[in-house]
Amino acid sequence: MEARLSLITLGVADFDRARRFYEALGWQGRSPDCEVYFIQAGGMVLALWDRTKLADDSGVVDGGGSAGFALAQNVRSPADVDSVIEEVRGAGGTVTREPGETFWGGYSAAFTDPDGHPWEIAHNPSWIITEDGRTLLDPE
Amino acid sequence: MEARLSLITLGVADFDRARRFYEALGWQGRSPDCEVYFIQAGGMVLALWDRTKLADDSGVVDGGGSAGFALAQNVRSPADVDSVIEEVRGAGGTVTREPGETFWGGYSAAFTDPDGHPWEIAHNPSWIITEDGRTLLDPE
Repeated sequence: MEARLSLITLGVADFDRARRFYEALGWQGRSPDCEVYFIQAGGMVLALWDRTKLADDSGVVDGGGSAGFALAQNVRSPADVDSVIEEVRGAGGTVTREPGETFWGGYSAAFTDPDGHPWEIAHNPSWIITEDGRTLLDPE
Repeated sequence: MEARLSLITLGVADFDRARRFYEALGWQGRSPDCEVYFIQAGGMVLALWDRTKLADDSGVVDGGGSAGFALAQNVRSPADVDSVIEEVRGAGGTVTREPGETFWGGYSAAFTDPDGHPWEIAHNPSWIITEDGRTLLDPE
């Protein structure tokens, strides 16, 4: 199995609310059927879809809440963490950890989207962000 | 905020078990501290980390179970769905939906990893997989 991801689908309770939040962050996508929303996110796709349908489709029982995973975007400087977090706050996200130094030697902040899905915005000085937005552990 | 993802962290109950599963799928990574495992997955990183620590770090309450999201890998043909799913079964994944035609005109199957995190392996004839493994909604 190739080591790559194509799609992350977030299960949402209120589709329009979730869509408005990501649109307010500038994540424009498309909804072929007014049920699912696909956003091109670099070399992969972020999707928003009804939470119950997603659990059914995945063959899992929805335990409720949001846990067991977190998404992250790495940015190019600590100042970028601060500015993205202000953008998130303006879009209605809930900042769950204010920007600050981390135990692993970086600088980051955490927030949740309207469905409680966790995100981190991080500056990690030892990882590489390419000009086209890929995040690499090692130089190419 | 740029529309791109750097990292998805999966919260795991048993770090070694989770690591062995992804390694058995050929997803080789590194563990700088024997606590977190980073796998380069195309232009982003998949990480495995203790579930409780991840929830604390994200500032969320872990609702237990696994729900509210799903990961997917799109492959180049229906036959590739079948072969990846056999690989997953061999690695100890639980197939929650056997390969078959989908309501959206593709062909896919679903499985869960040892922590119950849901994945889909899909062939979507209307999406593009580039030679370097990016998944695109539209031609470049």
